[in-house]
Amino acid sequence: MSKYWTDIVQQLNPYVPGEQPQDQQYIKLNTNENPYPPSPAVTKAINGYAVENLRRYPDPESRQLRQALAAYTGLECEQIFVGNGSDEVLAHSFKTFFQGRDDILFPDIGYSFYPVYCSLYRVNYRAIALDSNFAIDVSDYRQANGGIIIANPNAPTGITLTLAAIRELLEYTDSVVVIDEAYVDFGAESCQALVNEYPNLLVVQTFSKSRSLAGLRLGYALGHVELIEGLNRVKNSFNSYPVDRLGSAAAIASLGDDDYFQQCKDKIIESRNWLTEALTDLGFEVLPSKSNFIFTRHSSYPASQLYAELKKAGILVRHFETSRIENFIRISIGTDDECSALIEALKGLH
Amino acid sequence: MSKYWTDIVQQLNPYVPGEQPQDQQYIKLNTNENPYPPSPAVTKAINGYAVENLRRYPDPESRQLRQALAAYTGLECEQIFVGNGSDEVLAHSFKTFFQGRDDILFPDIGYSFYPVYCSLYRVNYRAIALDSNFAIDVSDYRQANGGIIIANPNAPTGITLTLAAIRELLEYTDSVVVIDEAYVDFGAESCQALVNEYPNLLVVQTFSKSRSLAGLRLGYALGHVELIEGLNRVKNSFNSYPVDRLGSAAAIASLGDDDYFQQCKDKIIESRNWLTEALTDLGFEVLPSKSNFIFTRHSSYPASQLYAELKKAGILVRHFETSRIENFIRISIGTDDECSALIEALKGLH
Repeated sequence: MSKYWTDIVQQLNPYVPGEQPQDQQYIKLNTNENPYPPSPAVTKAINGYAVENLRRYPDPESRQLRQALAAYTGLECEQIFVGNGSDEVLAHSFKTFFQGRDDILFPDIGYSFYPVYCSLYRVNYRAIALDSNFAIDVSDYRQANGGIIIANPNAPTGITLTLAAIRELLEYTDSVVVIDEAYVDFGAESCQALVNEYPNLLVVQTFSKSRSLAGLRLGYALGHVELIEGLNRVKNSFNSYPVDRLGSAAAIASLGDDDYFQQCKDKIIESRNWLTEALTDLGFEVLPSKSNFIFTRHSSYPASQLYAELKKAGILVRHFETSRIENFIRISIGTDDECSALIEALKGLH
Repeated sequence: MSKYWTDIVQQLNPYVPGEQPQDQQYIKLNTNENPYPPSPAVTKAINGYAVENLRRYPDPESRQLRQALAAYTGLECEQIFVGNGSDEVLAHSFKTFFQGRDDILFPDIGYSFYPVYCSLYRVNYRAIALDSNFAIDVSDYRQANGGIIIANPNAPTGITLTLAAIRELLEYTDSVVVIDEAYVDFGAESCQALVNEYPNLLVVQTFSKSRSLAGLRLGYALGHVELIEGLNRVKNSFNSYPVDRLGSAAAIASLGDDDYFQQCKDKIIESRNWLTEALTDLGFEVLPSKSNFIFTRHSSYPASQLYAELKKAGILVRHFETSRIENFIRISIGTDDECSALIEALKGLH
């Protein structure tokens, strides 16, 4: 604590990302990174980049990237907002749509950054309990609210909502509904097409997971032009140029290589299915995942022990000390070799 | 306006950056970009980067970059905060130190983003008038305040404060004093050494100008560990990884090539001196600049006319429609050819 910090900063309880060890080589299955490199088109864009252009500011409106996203999604440029990772896009969304409103709603078990944004902007919230199967029941959200935010698929459960359920949610409320689709490409159904129907729907996506660009920090939001204009007002009052020139070039190159994108995500889905079976064979309960991670527990092994033993074996997974899920571990889908190493390490525990 | 925007967002008056035309080739002397490319070491770092690593998140603590800055500045890592351009660092500083306090103080003519941050975070401020020579008189800041922020050299005047004057300012107040040194490398004296003496001093610098990396968005703050910890609390409640892998690699490479850095800034200082003389010969009044731009007016030509005529001639400069300075234009220092073209275009007006 410091007398120089404002009251809000004194009270913050910042987000803690998964470990990023700098020293030892781990099999890193803890932060939902893609096990495959970005498209060769990205390599070409970066390694062939005319570096002298970096002396110039980027386009503050990121028009080229937004045009590429417009072409890819079938939406208009004016329906697209881009930022420095989807975390920044989400932060700006809390400021733009939620601050100063009634309580917002989100699942009690979800992306743990949401309550942190609430503390940053002093947004009140009610956490809505997942059902006994760790799924979201949208009828629980049929109550007065200042906004709703849900990750779909949900993190860290990996469980997805149907489009019909999201539509039901949107019919209930006039508040802004943010659907955080960080993991949507791994088998869930995006609701991006619904932004033309519902002026209060904001869909947030990222290049970090399915496009293997976590290291470059690129996220975006899709929504009605009014929502996007609001986000731009906040962005332009915070940082005029959040997306840098190399990030923009890499993202455009990635969007241009759809074959590679499809191959990678298909491969990850295949590995997820295989890993789910292998874990089930070892007596694990695995929640039905449509993401690039699985959430699993074992009746005989506490999650804290599994986490510690795997770390000793050189494999990092994520363990949350959170009520209801303290006995689960979250495992990001790795390469076949990494998934096999995980299974072998777990067999060693038996 | 939209019913979905929060009250604050309705009332925002966002910052407007200098024009970044995408269509026509201009001689661009309007956004204080460096006329020279980044160091060849940066080119090597980017064009030789192992792009497969981009699938991984960056180090959320940016340790390698902070270590490089520590070595360069002689400070400790824990005294250094890095962000997505100095605009983001400044925004977080307003949140961390100023929000909810008494009025903060800054010059009536200065970086026009400061009042925008105030509207974003609802910080009240008193703008302190520059003196009749457009200089800052630090004795004017000897009044109750919740914080002080000053650009040194000041923008858009280019006029610098002495270290003695900044020390005087720091002796007056217990609030946090932010010295925004975006342009300090072009001949002004940095107060970074004072952070070990004054626990309330935060110095903000950037790779955008003197290091030709505007396109990559890299800024940083130097200060007491308590101030840096406060900034980290805010950053970690907003976006865990604001500095991407390529930005970090480029910044480290730039810091490693000090010869190139010194040559570029010396060349810009030389061009500034030449341009100042040439403009004076044409009857312009030029404020004494220690930055990579000059602020100038002519008694016979309104600035709006100069701006428009130069734009017609393919040369972009910046004109602010702000009281007291509405008759000045700000000219970024270009290459010799660009500066000569500017002088020729101005001669054409005579």
